[in-house]
Amino acid sequence: MIFDVGHQCYAHKILTGRSDQFSTLRTYNGLSGFIKRKESVHDVWEAGHASTSLSAALGMAIARDLDHQSHHVVSIIGDGALTGGMALEALNHIGASNHKVIVILNDNNMSISPNVGAVNHIFEQLRQSKSYTSLKKDVKGALKSTGVGESILSGMQNLKDLLKKNIIDDSIFGELGLNYFGPVDGHDLKDLIHILNLAKEQEDSLVIHVMTNKGKGYSLCEDDRRGYWHGVGSFDPSTGVSLTKIPSEHMSWSQVISETLIRLAKDDRDIVAITPAMINGSKLEKYFALFPTRAFDCGIAEEHATTMAAGLAIAGKKPFLSIYSTFLQRSYDQINHDITRMDLPVVIGVDHAQLVGEDGETHHGVFDVGFLAPLPNIIIGHPKDAQEAQNMLYTAFNQPHPFAIRYNKSSIAYQEVSEFSMMKIGSWEIYNESDDTLGYIITYGNECVKMIDKITTNGLKIAVINARFIKPLDQDLLARIAIKNKPIFTYELDMLNGGLSSLIVEYYNDNKMKVNLYRYGIDDEYVPHGSNVELRKALKLDTTSILENIQSIVG
Amino acid sequence: MIFDVGHQCYAHKILTGRSDQFSTLRTYNGLSGFIKRKESVHDVWEAGHASTSLSAALGMAIARDLDHQSHHVVSIIGDGALTGGMALEALNHIGASNHKVIVILNDNNMSISPNVGAVNHIFEQLRQSKSYTSLKKDVKGALKSTGVGESILSGMQNLKDLLKKNIIDDSIFGELGLNYFGPVDGHDLKDLIHILNLAKEQEDSLVIHVMTNKGKGYSLCEDDRRGYWHGVGSFDPSTGVSLTKIPSEHMSWSQVISETLIRLAKDDRDIVAITPAMINGSKLEKYFALFPTRAFDCGIAEEHATTMAAGLAIAGKKPFLSIYSTFLQRSYDQINHDITRMDLPVVIGVDHAQLVGEDGETHHGVFDVGFLAPLPNIIIGHPKDAQEAQNMLYTAFNQPHPFAIRYNKSSIAYQEVSEFSMMKIGSWEIYNESDDTLGYIITYGNECVKMIDKITTNGLKIAVINARFIKPLDQDLLARIAIKNKPIFTYELDMLNGGLSSLIVEYYNDNKMKVNLYRYGIDDEYVPHGSNVELRKALKLDTTSILENIQSIVG
Repeated sequence: MIFDVGHQCYAHKILTGRSDQFSTLRTYNGLSGFIKRKESVHDVWEAGHASTSLSAALGMAIARDLDHQSHHVVSIIGDGALTGGMALEALNHIGASNHKVIVILNDNNMSISPNVGAVNHIFEQLRQSKSYTSLKKDVKGALKSTGVGESILSGMQNLKDLLKKNIIDDSIFGELGLNYFGPVDGHDLKDLIHILNLAKEQEDSLVIHVMTNKGKGYSLCEDDRRGYWHGVGSFDPSTGVSLTKIPSEHMSWSQVISETLIRLAKDDRDIVAITPAMINGSKLEKYFALFPTRAFDCGIAEEHATTMAAGLAIAGKKPFLSIYSTFLQRSYDQINHDITRMDLPVVIGVDHAQLVGEDGETHHGVFDVGFLAPLPNIIIGHPKDAQEAQNMLYTAFNQPHPFAIRYNKSSIAYQEVSEFSMMKIGSWEIYNESDDTLGYIITYGNECVKMIDKITTNGLKIAVINARFIKPLDQDLLARIAIKNKPIFTYELDMLNGGLSSLIVEYYNDNKMKVNLYRYGIDDEYVPHGSNVELRKALKLDTTSILENIQSIVG
Repeated sequence: MIFDVGHQCYAHKILTGRSDQFSTLRTYNGLSGFIKRKESVHDVWEAGHASTSLSAALGMAIARDLDHQSHHVVSIIGDGALTGGMALEALNHIGASNHKVIVILNDNNMSISPNVGAVNHIFEQLRQSKSYTSLKKDVKGALKSTGVGESILSGMQNLKDLLKKNIIDDSIFGELGLNYFGPVDGHDLKDLIHILNLAKEQEDSLVIHVMTNKGKGYSLCEDDRRGYWHGVGSFDPSTGVSLTKIPSEHMSWSQVISETLIRLAKDDRDIVAITPAMINGSKLEKYFALFPTRAFDCGIAEEHATTMAAGLAIAGKKPFLSIYSTFLQRSYDQINHDITRMDLPVVIGVDHAQLVGEDGETHHGVFDVGFLAPLPNIIIGHPKDAQEAQNMLYTAFNQPHPFAIRYNKSSIAYQEVSEFSMMKIGSWEIYNESDDTLGYIITYGNECVKMIDKITTNGLKIAVINARFIKPLDQDLLARIAIKNKPIFTYELDMLNGGLSSLIVEYYNDNKMKVNLYRYGIDDEYVPHGSNVELRKALKLDTTSILENIQSIVG
């Protein structure tokens, strides 16, 4: 049983021996919020990114048949994940292959935000078809007429014909060569079990279209059409109010970017925004409401979204492509082949960069510097605070190259800048430097502010450099500090390999500057789930550990 | 007019002012074999990778409508490219949007290899439908009844109804909310012009299904069902015989890998092979013929192919995933999220790595080290010769981690090893080292052999290190040569940034070893098309330039 994405796996975990540990869900060293192979033999496939389950299922079905085994391979995929191109690639292959896969389409009519696109229209038709409303008694009628063995098969044939007559002609699955069963009420266990038993008897691959209500049983979730309840922290169950306290005058980075985007879009009619099913996650609701003709939700389809942004840029628009770092991995080729190769001015908002805490391994946004930095023409920025974020976004829209601006999922103090100002591309800042400086810390983002605070508070003679541009580097500043002959420390909450420190080490090497450089970052391992505080501690990447280490070196 | 991939653009180039330069096609500083914006204002979108045109078209159509312009946006896409997930993502979006795009589906029933998958079955039905055979006279009948203006529209309505009645119910496009016109004989110019004029009058997005013969007018191409003629070098037009001379006992790298795969697959029934539409390009015909149940062509669907390989591995198979380096970019997320994160033993054959010559910018396989090396758990190898390739593939199948083995498109001397032997992961080799060694060149692949030859022939006191594993590094050897205090040179025909040299510089930095290291590779730029000989010279990355440079340093 392969869960696509695996958000739906909580009941599965409880039913497969993990009810005792369930209170540890999404905590450090506790149960993962996703399927995790090391937790249970019943967890066969891990995923945090959408649309992978059908390809995985076909692979497992082929292996089963080659080994002359007889188990079933079942993929459970949401309707939202079906807009992802690789799921469609896989359906195309499954429909043409003779390796049987049972596809359970969990249709709650939501991606993370509400569904979009033509495929969704097809589902709308299916949902509203006469068959759906009359289905329950039809299915029961059909099932009553079935017995066991031969008669199940013939009964099923009737059912199939019945369904086919009513629905299959409307269905994209029929076109793709897959038998289609449904829709079925996913909250009616008896019907479900009956139809699953029928599915087991089928020879060929099939799709069971199951209708469910997202958040069934909790009215606040059931009524949510925006996707707010897709993923939440602790909350009061009686009111639904979040227990997470965001300090007043604080805002999430996504919100800071979104507010700035709105301000810029008011004056610049060429700005358009694109998101793959993340209107809510990336806090773009207000932008979408204000600029409906300049706002595009592509569904879970990062590749298409990215190349569409390239098309918009080539036609003179200023696209803002908002994608979580981890999902931007899906767009690597589109960024390389369609954006940076043609040097198109697409502004990429790399949301949820760095460690993301509880979602863990599949969601940490720690690879994007490594895969973006080797691309010619791209500028990569990572602002340290809200003011810098505002000016960086303004700068990104007013220069001619691809520009990735990174920010993480924390919240920061926010005040609107009175006037935007252009930043010099590749310029860094230095804080707390004096004649007595014992060493230099190069870092970016929130960590920069934290380091400055900590160093000032403790009166340490360490200078902090805000590497707000990861590419290009501030070569002048790097050259200037090299001749001071003091230790240099790089500190990043991203993969070391291919990250900022890697670019700096290369720079010093190629310019034959001898430096004593220490690198702190994530060293060639996948980081598990847990709170960011715990993860940083475990990785020895919290500011306290880093500063202790630095002090032991500078003396 | 947006050409998907752009292999079809030669006539377009001739018709848009480039007939004089046509003899320079695919030569250095000559015309590109693909659409190239700097060549002509008529070249609006560049692509060498499949399936991007629909997303680009929608982006341009949106921009047109926002700017209240009235031109048409036309995407010309092959049926093969439609199996690519991002094309399906885009169709889904186009079908639901109100920005008109004209999609010309150029249906020659081929990807690069013959088409596969369920979508292709749908096309088969369309092709064989009564409508196709009777279409020409039907279209002509319908067209005869049309005049201009209003009457064209009403005539078209009739035509649409006619086509709809016959075909659209069978068509996936109807499901996706797109009007469908066709099929039309793509070699009948008059019919084509008529139907294009009708398409211009339509208000909504539509698909014109055009039937063509690949290689029309040259019988050898027309009759080719394997895909041999998809891309060829110079040949004798009367016989079709290639003028490219491969020395006897030489084989392409792809062939060496393929022969080895066959040998290994005979003894190991768990080996399976997967290719995305590259049976011919990757020389897998023989393997596919010998092991039909253990060979999978997924069509142009790199993402699905990669995750299917992960599914096979998780179920105990030993998948060999053969993908060109440049197309592997499409699978970045699937490699990261589905293979390396779960540490699955998939062997990735990274074909056409390094510079690929005439295909140019969109096809050079120079990024994969940069995007693979930051992934935990992966092993990256690049053999110097056929013997090493054979043992490396054997090793890859007999160890438990993801293993990428790179090779380029040149040919090499081949002799079957009598017995396979396991290589020590991360072990390098050193040649020509002595007490008088003046410096060390670290390189991999063909360049390693060339360097050894050249250095031995010229009696140079330079040692050559075969970095046959790019990850992990041979740290012992690196440490040993560091203390010699001689200059170290790295030489790679890949991107410098994130490449082998980057990993070496990081290693020396982190281990506080002072070295005098010079790096040769591609420095943060896209490389144009031309012969590899010319490109290397232009980049100053030919062995002669490198050795001159090295000699000037070592004295």
